[in-house]
Amino acid sequence: MNNSKLPELIVSEWINTPQPIRLSELRGKVVVIEAFQMLCPGCVAHGLPLASRIAEAFPSDAVQVIGLHSVFEHHDVQGPRAALEAFVHEYRLSFPIAMDAPAGDGGIPKTMRAYQLQGTPSLLIVDGQGQLRLNHFGRPDDLPIGAKIMELIVEARASKTESPPSEITNAAEGGVCLADGSGCS
Amino acid sequence: MNNSKLPELIVSEWINTPQPIRLSELRGKVVVIEAFQMLCPGCVAHGLPLASRIAEAFPSDAVQVIGLHSVFEHHDVQGPRAALEAFVHEYRLSFPIAMDAPAGDGGIPKTMRAYQLQGTPSLLIVDGQGQLRLNHFGRPDDLPIGAKIMELIVEARASKTESPPSEITNAAEGGVCLADGSGCS
Amino acid sequence: MNNSKLPELIVSEWINTPQPIRLSELRGKVVVIEAFQMLCPGCVAHGLPLASRIAEAFPSDAVQVIGLHSVFEHHDVQGPRAALEAFVHEYRLSFPIAMDAPAGDGGIPKTMRAYQLQGTPSLLIVDGQGQLRLNHFGRPDDLPIGAKIMELIVEARASKTESPPSEITNAAEGGVCLADGSGCS
Amino acid sequence: MNNSKLPELIVSEWINTPQPIRLSELRGKVVVIEAFQMLCPGCVAHGLPLASRIAEAFPSDAVQVIGLHSVFEHHDVQGPRAALEAFVHEYRLSFPIAMDAPAGDGGIPKTMRAYQLQGTPSLLIVDGQGQLRLNHFGRPDDLPIGAKIMELIVEARASKTESPPSEITNAAEGGVCLADGSGCS
Repeated sequence: MNNSKLPELIVSEWINTPQPIRLSELRGKVVVIEAFQMLCPGCVAHGLPLASRIAEAFPSDAVQVIGLHSVFEHHDVQGPRAALEAFVHEYRLSFPIAMDAPAGDGGIPKTMRAYQLQGTPSLLIVDGQGQLRLNHFGRPDDLPIGAKIMELIVEARASKTESPPSEITNAAEGGVCLADGSGCS
Repeated sequence: MNNSKLPELIVSEWINTPQPIRLSELRGKVVVIEAFQMLCPGCVAHGLPLASRIAEAFPSDAVQVIGLHSVFEHHDVQGPRAALEAFVHEYRLSFPIAMDAPAGDGGIPKTMRAYQLQGTPSLLIVDGQGQLRLNHFGRPDDLPIGAKIMELIVEARASKTESPPSEITNAAEGGVCLADGSGCS
Repeated sequence: MNNSKLPELIVSEWINTPQPIRLSELRGKVVVIEAFQMLCPGCVAHGLPLASRIAEAFPSDAVQVIGLHSVFEHHDVQGPRAALEAFVHEYRLSFPIAMDAPAGDGGIPKTMRAYQLQGTPSLLIVDGQGQLRLNHFGRPDDLPIGAKIMELIVEARASKTESPPSEITNAAEGGVCLADGSGCS
Repeated sequence: MNNSKLPELIVSEWINTPQPIRLSELRGKVVVIEAFQMLCPGCVAHGLPLASRIAEAFPSDAVQVIGLHSVFEHHDVQGPRAALEAFVHEYRLSFPIAMDAPAGDGGIPKTMRAYQLQGTPSLLIVDGQGQLRLNHFGRPDDLPIGAKIMELIVEARASKTESPPSEITNAAEGGVCLADGSGCS
C-alpha cells in the first residue's frame, strides 16, 4: 500500500545464507545493500571492503548487510553461481549475497532495473520501515555513511510506526561500471 | 553540580577564532576535540585529517570541531604561538585551535592533565549536554566515529535535558605520542 | 644446452598479442613475468598494478612485460578464455598475457610447475640472456624492483654474450595465493 | 674546472653526522639529496618517506642519502636547529641532514638558490662524478627513481673517469611548497 517502500529483491539464488532473505522480514533493522559485480574494479577496491567494514562496525541485530550481485555485462563469465562462489571465497565475504535475477534479454538484471541503479558499485541504505534513504553510486566516504546508518538505527529504535521523509542522494565517480552501456571507468 | 560534565578547556591562547570558546556555550551541539602536537607523526597523518573531515561532513550548527594543541614534549619548539600558526597555515587547518595552557613544571599541559589524556592524537567527543562520550587515543576508524557523532546529534536534537549514560571508549595504537614519557611510536 | 636459462613458457592461448611470444626471441631485452590468477586478491590489488607500472615506466624496446595466468584453483571459473578476457578488459590490462597450460590432473599448470612458483602473485625478472634473476612471491617494493630492472637493462646493453651469476630472491607475504593447497591469505 | 659538477652544499650546521659532508668526498657514490622543510606537508607525506626508503633499499657504500633543510618561509619557526632536531627525532630520520645556510635577506637559502630549486620537496640525484642527473620537484614515482639510482650505481662501478651526458628532469605537482612566493599547495 505504501509505495515509498523499496520493493523486494528479485533473486535467482542466495549465497552465505541458509534461506532467502525478504526485506519485509527485516523491518526494524537498517538494511545496507551493496550492489556489485565480481569483475568491477571499483567494487573490489572500494564497494565490497566498505560493506565488510559496515558489517563489522555495527551490531547484526541493528544492521543487515546484503550483497547484491547485479550482473549487467560479461554475463557468461560473471553469471554462474560457481563463479560468484569462487569470488566470495577468495575475497572472504561473509555477509549474505543475492544473485540478482537475470532479465530475459541478457541486459540489466531485474532488481537493478526495479531499483533504477546507475551501475556498480551502488550502496543502498534502507530504514527500519523499509524505505530507501540513500542510494550512492560510486565511492562514498565512510564518515557520512557511518552517520547515516546510525541516524536510521536511532530512528528505528525510537519508533517503528512513523514515516520519515525520504532522502535519497546520488553521486557518480571514477572506478565504476555504468549500466547505460558505457562500461566501466 | 553535575560532575560528569567535561571541565572547560584551560587555554593560554586561541587560533582561528575571534574570541575564546567555552564548552558551556556549546550546549546543544556535539563537540569534537582533537588533541594533537604539531610534530606528532600520527596527528599529522591521521588525527588532524580526520578532524578536518568531520568539520566538513557535519553541519557547523550541529557539530563544533576544536583542535587542542597539547604540548608535552619539545616545549621550546612546539610551544610558541608563531610555531603553531605556521603549522596551521601550512596544513590548512580551518577549525578553532586552543593552545593547552602549559603547566608550570614544563610537563603535561593543564587541559591534557585535567582530561587525563594518554597522549596524542586523542579524539574526544562531547554530547549536547557537555558530557564526554568518547575518548579515543590513536587512530580510530571513520565509520564508527561518524556513527557516534550522528548518535549524539540525534540525541541533542531530541532532548536537551536528559542525561544519557556515559560511554567512553579507549584504544591505543602505533604512530602516537604517549604522555607517560615513552615518547612517540 | 645452457641449463641456467629459464625454460620457455608453456602456453595454451595468448591474449593481447597477435602471435605467441617466445622467450628465446626476447634475448637482449629484460623480461618481466607477472604470474597471477584473476580471483587472487593480492594479484588484483598489488601484482597487476605493479606490472602495469613497469610496462609504463620502461621503454618497450628494453623491457617486455608478460602476464602469466597460472590457474591452480577454481579451474572451472578462472580457466576459460572468456573469463580471463572479461577480466583483462575490465582491469584495462594492455600487456600480452599467456594462459598457462593446464596440467592433465587439474592441479598446478605446466609453466608454474616448471618454474616451481610458490603461488600468485609472483614476479619474475629475466635478463637479456634469458636467465632468471629474480623470483618474488608476494608484494615487492617498487624501489628495488625498479633498480633490479635497470641493472639488467644496463647489463643487456653492455653485453649480449657474458653470463652474469644468477641471483634469485624469494619472499612471501600476506594477500597471496599459495600453490601448496593452503589457498589464499 | 668542470662546470657541470653540482656545487658543494652551503651549510650552516649538520645533524645526524659527526662531521660535515662534502660532495667532493663522495665521488664514486651516488648521492641523493632530499630538499625539504619540516612544515611542508608534501615533504612529510611523500618526500622524506621516499628518502628513507632509498636509504634502506640501497647499500650505504653505493648510495649516500642527504637531507637538505632549505627553509624559505616561516624562518623563525623552522630555522632554529632545535626545531629541526625535534622534527628529526619525532620522524625518526636517520640520514645526515644539512641545514641550508640562510640568505642574509631572509629569503631563499644559499644552497637552494645555487641549485635553483623550485621549492620543496625536491629530489636531486648526483652521479659518481658529482654531476646532477635528476632534479625532481614534487612527488616522483618509486619505480623510475629506483631505476635511475641503479643506472648511476652501475655507471659509477664501471668507470670513474668518463663524463656521461647530463640528463635532468623536472616535474611539479600538488602538495608542494613553491619558492616563488606562492607558498604551499
